[in-house]
Amino acid sequence: MVDLLFAPEVRMMLQDNDEAGMQTFCENLHPATVAGALTGEFEADEVWRFLQHTGIKNQAVIFEYFPIDWQVKLVEGTGRQHMAKLIEQMSHDDRADLMRRLMPRVQESLLRLVDEANRRDIAQLVKYEENTAGALMTTDYAWLPANISASEALDRLRLQAPDRETIYYIFILDEDRRLKGVVSLRDLILAPRHKLIHELMEDEVVAVRVTDDREHLAREIAHYDLLAIPVLDEQKRLVGIVTHDDVMDVVVKEATEDVHRLGGMTPLAEGYLETRFFTVWWKRAGWLSLLFVTALGTIFVLAGFQQSLQEVIVLSLFIPLCIGTGGNSGSQAATLITRALALNQLNGSDWARVLRHELLMGLALGLSLGAIGFLICFLLPSSLLGDRVHWFHLALVVSQAVMAICLWGTVVGSMLPLIFRSLGFDPAFASSPFVAMFVDVTGIVIYFSIASIWIL
Amino acid sequence: MVDLLFAPEVRMMLQDNDEAGMQTFCENLHPATVAGALTGEFEADEVWRFLQHTGIKNQAVIFEYFPIDWQVKLVEGTGRQHMAKLIEQMSHDDRADLMRRLMPRVQESLLRLVDEANRRDIAQLVKYEENTAGALMTTDYAWLPANISASEALDRLRLQAPDRETIYYIFILDEDRRLKGVVSLRDLILAPRHKLIHELMEDEVVAVRVTDDREHLAREIAHYDLLAIPVLDEQKRLVGIVTHDDVMDVVVKEATEDVHRLGGMTPLAEGYLETRFFTVWWKRAGWLSLLFVTALGTIFVLAGFQQSLQEVIVLSLFIPLCIGTGGNSGSQAATLITRALALNQLNGSDWARVLRHELLMGLALGLSLGAIGFLICFLLPSSLLGDRVHWFHLALVVSQAVMAICLWGTVVGSMLPLIFRSLGFDPAFASSPFVAMFVDVTGIVIYFSIASIWIL
Repeated sequence: MVDLLFAPEVRMMLQDNDEAGMQTFCENLHPATVAGALTGEFEADEVWRFLQHTGIKNQAVIFEYFPIDWQVKLVEGTGRQHMAKLIEQMSHDDRADLMRRLMPRVQESLLRLVDEANRRDIAQLVKYEENTAGALMTTDYAWLPANISASEALDRLRLQAPDRETIYYIFILDEDRRLKGVVSLRDLILAPRHKLIHELMEDEVVAVRVTDDREHLAREIAHYDLLAIPVLDEQKRLVGIVTHDDVMDVVVKEATEDVHRLGGMTPLAEGYLETRFFTVWWKRAGWLSLLFVTALGTIFVLAGFQQSLQEVIVLSLFIPLCIGTGGNSGSQAATLITRALALNQLNGSDWARVLRHELLMGLALGLSLGAIGFLICFLLPSSLLGDRVHWFHLALVVSQAVMAICLWGTVVGSMLPLIFRSLGFDPAFASSPFVAMFVDVTGIVIYFSIASIWIL
Repeated sequence: MVDLLFAPEVRMMLQDNDEAGMQTFCENLHPATVAGALTGEFEADEVWRFLQHTGIKNQAVIFEYFPIDWQVKLVEGTGRQHMAKLIEQMSHDDRADLMRRLMPRVQESLLRLVDEANRRDIAQLVKYEENTAGALMTTDYAWLPANISASEALDRLRLQAPDRETIYYIFILDEDRRLKGVVSLRDLILAPRHKLIHELMEDEVVAVRVTDDREHLAREIAHYDLLAIPVLDEQKRLVGIVTHDDVMDVVVKEATEDVHRLGGMTPLAEGYLETRFFTVWWKRAGWLSLLFVTALGTIFVLAGFQQSLQEVIVLSLFIPLCIGTGGNSGSQAATLITRALALNQLNGSDWARVLRHELLMGLALGLSLGAIGFLICFLLPSSLLGDRVHWFHLALVVSQAVMAICLWGTVVGSMLPLIFRSLGFDPAFASSPFVAMFVDVTGIVIYFSIASIWIL
């Protein structure tokens, strides 16, 4: 988040080369605030000139709060030697994220300067696929063996504490690093000093696999109200943990992705104002063009009914209303089901239940709108009708068409996300515009079919 | 989350009245799992018959994991005396939530049985408005004075620990309960034993006001990666804290609300399958009817162009395509801006910047789609055109209309959320269906205006 409040102050300190001021600023404010103040209008070299007045450890903490794009740019703005030192101090998950974004050439030259333990750790983390637990996790967790006493555990923990992402959950491992249990720091400090860890620990541990999807991980951590969740490899060995704050980011990102997809566009990875114009254009134009080409169907379907339209021109007046209703009811259903899938309230096997529910709902909604449609036709000025059509017949057509199209839109809208899911796509591809386009073509056919019964 | 996996086992234990089994089940599984297994197909009295085999404290922990609706039903299924005991054991925020949902008569009769300290705490929490920090917070936080040593602090903390929501952040208060600082348990156990708390504590504390919106609170806790955030009253006194797990729920709920609104319906408070049919109907039918009535505009606008339609029937073929494009581009823009507002990437004062951006974007998107539209008309079979219209003229009309409508849809879609926000409504009211309906009417006017230049 860009913080414009402090920007003038930062600018001033840089101009005056106010070393004491810069140091105080870096060390007394929250690192998130410092990062916010140094994002936005400054150049990379200015940021480094500012940050050099605090220790490398604090530099790393502040650096982690920068948006990832800005981090990448900052890497270019300082010496490789300095950057390598900073990377050694960073959280293991954050530096792996950064490394994934760097050009291979830059990545390699930096890695060569990092000490061996850290280098191996980075190499390990970088190889996990995006959106998996492996890609989110950090390797700097606190761990202990099972056969020591609570007081010894506290002593050992004090040694580990400074470098660990969290020490509030301590993972208990055997000699092969297999996860045996977990102890919370709360339980540890409450326990009698002589009590052994394996008596204290919770041995039914909620954990995820390294290849698990980040959405699954987020649901587990939220469901069990955890501070951190352990990540295991195929051999049930602990390879990392994911902490609650990273999961919060995942939840927000996943929701944004769903919202963007439902709005009929490819999700933006960065903020609205940060994303380049061309990228936004591309992500919007792609879907719009696809929908546009799909909508060609409406031209050809309407062309098929051109003769009828010519004869009873009043029919054309109700086309937008009828197909719009299909789009709206479909968009509601699609949104509802997509979100229920995302929240795990539904899964693929519930399709029959959803279908039954939405058939009834489509009928109920269709009846409500059909009744309004009937009333509207009754109230229509007779000058609009022409001489060929009686209002009652038109009312029959409009109300029945609205009902049928509403039912159809609801069913299509509710089934599309489930179909997408079962084909392995994101259900949110069943966006409002997509469903609307899909229902438009069929809506026109329904409308004219019903018209041909009563009028044509 | 309903857990169907364990349901048969639970059913069996209840039938056999397997007391040892029920106790083991309640005490060895994660409370979230126990709650999941007892939600769904069981009656309230069965749940209580099952839970009575574990202590009241564990009952309370499990009870907190039930969905709130189920909690309300369970209150009816047991004696008031027992329920009052359970309430005394519950987390302060969870029991306040429950109390808010109970009928005043039930609430009163329960409160009378709760001991005085807890009764006063509940009365205090219940009065805060929904969606504020006050309604989310819990009063069972850990606190200490500033003038004691680290080792004394640890001793005192051990006494508080069992009843506190979290002891990982310890809040430092003066005699008037004013918040002076915060110490993390990590720093506390790392500190030399004789060091005084006021030397250890962080005195720049991120906090919220009791009346602050829960969205603001969620953003703060996510931005600063906090485990818990203190909540202050007007006099800067600490009145409660909100922990990360409750904020996670807020983030998910807020996203669901936005998604539902963007899909054109009133948000459902409960899960899709849990909500009553009539409630869902009501929340969907309301918006659909409103949109339907708004769409009447399309009838009257089209009626105004009836004469032109009669003369050049081919024009009617492109109406759904043109207005659909307006709806799609508008829906993209509205979605994008609404989400950016929700994530605080934008605020109301950015409207000029957004307008400039979306004007350019609308133009770029319109040009892309207009080009496709032109091509389509070129490829159209001449039989569709009739003798009155040359393809080139039609192509001019369609491409220019698509361009203009796309630009218009984009601008309307991006401005509506900002307008709603500035009027004090949720920006997500600018849903895809709403924007589409809004753009439909104007789209038809744009289309025929351009047609009248080249053809009519």
